[in-house]
Amino acid sequence: MIKRLCLIGVGLIGGSLALSLRQKGRVEEVVGVDPDLANLQTAQQLGIIDRGHTSIQAGVENADWVVIATPVGVMPGIFSVLKPLWRDEVVYTDTGSTKSDVVEAVKQIFGEVPGNFVPGHPIAGAECSGARAANAELFVNRRVILSPLRSTHPEFLDRVEMLWKSTGAKVSLMDHQHHDEVLAATSHLPHVLAFVLTEMLGRKDEQQEIFQFAAGGFRDFTRIASSDPRMWLDICLANRREILPLIEQYREALGETAEIIANGEAGKLLALFTEAQAARQRFLDQLEK
Amino acid sequence: MIKRLCLIGVGLIGGSLALSLRQKGRVEEVVGVDPDLANLQTAQQLGIIDRGHTSIQAGVENADWVVIATPVGVMPGIFSVLKPLWRDEVVYTDTGSTKSDVVEAVKQIFGEVPGNFVPGHPIAGAECSGARAANAELFVNRRVILSPLRSTHPEFLDRVEMLWKSTGAKVSLMDHQHHDEVLAATSHLPHVLAFVLTEMLGRKDEQQEIFQFAAGGFRDFTRIASSDPRMWLDICLANRREILPLIEQYREALGETAEIIANGEAGKLLALFTEAQAARQRFLDQLEK
Repeated sequence: MIKRLCLIGVGLIGGSLALSLRQKGRVEEVVGVDPDLANLQTAQQLGIIDRGHTSIQAGVENADWVVIATPVGVMPGIFSVLKPLWRDEVVYTDTGSTKSDVVEAVKQIFGEVPGNFVPGHPIAGAECSGARAANAELFVNRRVILSPLRSTHPEFLDRVEMLWKSTGAKVSLMDHQHHDEVLAATSHLPHVLAFVLTEMLGRKDEQQEIFQFAAGGFRDFTRIASSDPRMWLDICLANRREILPLIEQYREALGETAEIIANGEAGKLLALFTEAQAARQRFLDQLEK
Repeated sequence: MIKRLCLIGVGLIGGSLALSLRQKGRVEEVVGVDPDLANLQTAQQLGIIDRGHTSIQAGVENADWVVIATPVGVMPGIFSVLKPLWRDEVVYTDTGSTKSDVVEAVKQIFGEVPGNFVPGHPIAGAECSGARAANAELFVNRRVILSPLRSTHPEFLDRVEMLWKSTGAKVSLMDHQHHDEVLAATSHLPHVLAFVLTEMLGRKDEQQEIFQFAAGGFRDFTRIASSDPRMWLDICLANRREILPLIEQYREALGETAEIIANGEAGKLLALFTEAQAARQRFLDQLEK
């Protein structure tokens, strides 16, 4: 049982975690920290937090758990503020979409990564953001990746793992480099592709109104382009080492496909589309497991 | 009231049209033509067609309407078979995803496009295909584009327009070149992007199982990669003149974005993502209208 959870960043992810823990009776008190006062008020009205602060110092006071659920770009600043307030008995974890940059920032600030900080990432985004989008069921059957280091204390890892399992999530352990490599492929690259397409077609639409003839396929394909731009800015910059080679690989694959189309090589094109369809079926089969 | 509708190609689109017309009592008899006997049997069992033929000659006998709802790649062959059977009082229309190639094929075969053929395209795909996927509500509130030519007889255009309106669709008129330009942007390009991504990540998944960490965003982004490969092969080859420049433009935009990420130009990247998010909102607002 958590006595006082300090939630730094009261958005979709943090808010949903708080709601789930409350619903399961696993937390006595939730204190929110957020720079946006209106968002804190909303979170309080929605029963996500008991009270809110705009200051981290006030928020972490006497907390036995601290969950950092902000965009990754602001995390280095948060850890710098946390350093003088750090207590060895407190469980610290984060929900950042990238892991190597968070680990790197903590290393730089603390010298080495404290044993009571467990890097984590619930893979459960949505195109909505803010406390208002939070829901207690967000993590049911979703994956959560924890990226412990050699210095991570097993007892703290266990506690964070149990926390996420209590929300209905399936927990996997993965080192932070591998996490960033996998997520670059399955999440970061698709988001970049969707943003670039939607921006490009948005310019076309201003000239000749093409969107009115776009249908359900387009709606689903571009859904992730409605994601929070600030959060995705942070992710792209934080994980550029993994994302950039994938973009290049994708541009090459796309160029090869264009050549196949230009040459009218029906057999090759059919093989590619058929392979894609089969790959997606493999993905769907896994999703249902 | 249609006395005998001959449906050449009994798949998702043709089957849904037949079901809708039957439900509204606008057709007395539907005769299906399909090379796939099992599919014809399914269609008959589902009440989509009254009887089926694998031969076009037998299928069009005494029909007063002929709807061609096959992949566009086989349409030239179908029009060649139809030519000696053509009757001036019959309404002919198609549902092909591209229009210039269909018009071009008909021109080549007939010398000029007959006044009783109305090129059409219901923008209502789905990733499922075949008669089994058909449903009477598929066209409700969906767009149907008709691309009449100068030679098209207004009376036949009116009748095809009324037919589609009776299914609940919103009908727009657009010349065939413009149709292909618009659809290349809103549909063909996104499909190519999804196929290429899914195939590329499918190869990665075989090496290191990344799909198990992909979530809802990936599922929606790649949904269109589950579309019928044969149909999309035809579309890509038929409309390559419009698709190829768009692929090139997209590759350039993606390359510029990669450079912005590589240079860490946060302001530019945030502007791009914000613009994309706003463009998608404009699209959603139109979809609801």
